[in-house]
Amino acid sequence: MPTELPNERAIRQPGSMELDPSSGEGVALEETRKLIASNKVEGTAVYDRAGDQLGSVYNFMVDKVSGQVAYVVMSFGGFLGIGESYHALPWRALTYEPRVGGYVVDIDRDKLRDAPHYGASEDPFVDDEYGAKVDAYYRTAPTS
Amino acid sequence: MPTELPNERAIRQPGSMELDPSSGEGVALEETRKLIASNKVEGTAVYDRAGDQLGSVYNFMVDKVSGQVAYVVMSFGGFLGIGESYHALPWRALTYEPRVGGYVVDIDRDKLRDAPHYGASEDPFVDDEYGAKVDAYYRTAPTS
Repeated sequence: MPTELPNERAIRQPGSMELDPSSGEGVALEETRKLIASNKVEGTAVYDRAGDQLGSVYNFMVDKVSGQVAYVVMSFGGFLGIGESYHALPWRALTYEPRVGGYVVDIDRDKLRDAPHYGASEDPFVDDEYGAKVDAYYRTAPTS
Repeated sequence: MPTELPNERAIRQPGSMELDPSSGEGVALEETRKLIASNKVEGTAVYDRAGDQLGSVYNFMVDKVSGQVAYVVMSFGGFLGIGESYHALPWRALTYEPRVGGYVVDIDRDKLRDAPHYGASEDPFVDDEYGAKVDAYYRTAPTS
């Protein structure tokens, strides 16, 4: 058991999520919070596993009764060669990554290109079956 | 068993949530959907049990990991005599009521006036303990 702690860490306040200022992780306080405001999720960047930005969060679809976020709708600015388009992804497909301050998806571009998507003037969620179509494509269980 | 159905209802399309046009319920198609877009929740009216509008949804706080909506933040335009203010309510305290196209809370004005609230320049959710404070006031279990 060491009697000296050469890199002794500052003591956090109880209940505080504030980062150790000496850790050098460079993560803003904002990113360490457990909860995020809906209007801040909108616009958050979405990256692939390689760290390239695929798009950003346009909005997300919430189950009115349970309050569970079911789908996150990403917008692509013509990135995939299919014009401005919206892709709904199951919430579970996204991982929040504090280090990059955004969401990471384990989906490659080919898979995204062929996935269910729609244009700015469309609103496929008027059909409650649309979610099942998205789930089937990404092979996840229904999220709500 | 009646052999005649004087108010025979139109047959719905399979999977359609479209209302029976003859039912006279006057509910828009939009309100019957299972999922609602985050940017449409923002701005939705909040009513008390008597049907009076208390305020509207400013935004809502989402658990980054689970995707569960934990708190809905209502804005009041000086309604309670405390100036423009924001009240976070546990998601479970709100019931979506399709008939009025908004949320209904079973909380009276006195209870709201004394509840945790904050001003436009404040952001109490930087402290993860703030949710527990809200939960304690409304005596609900933590939602996430």
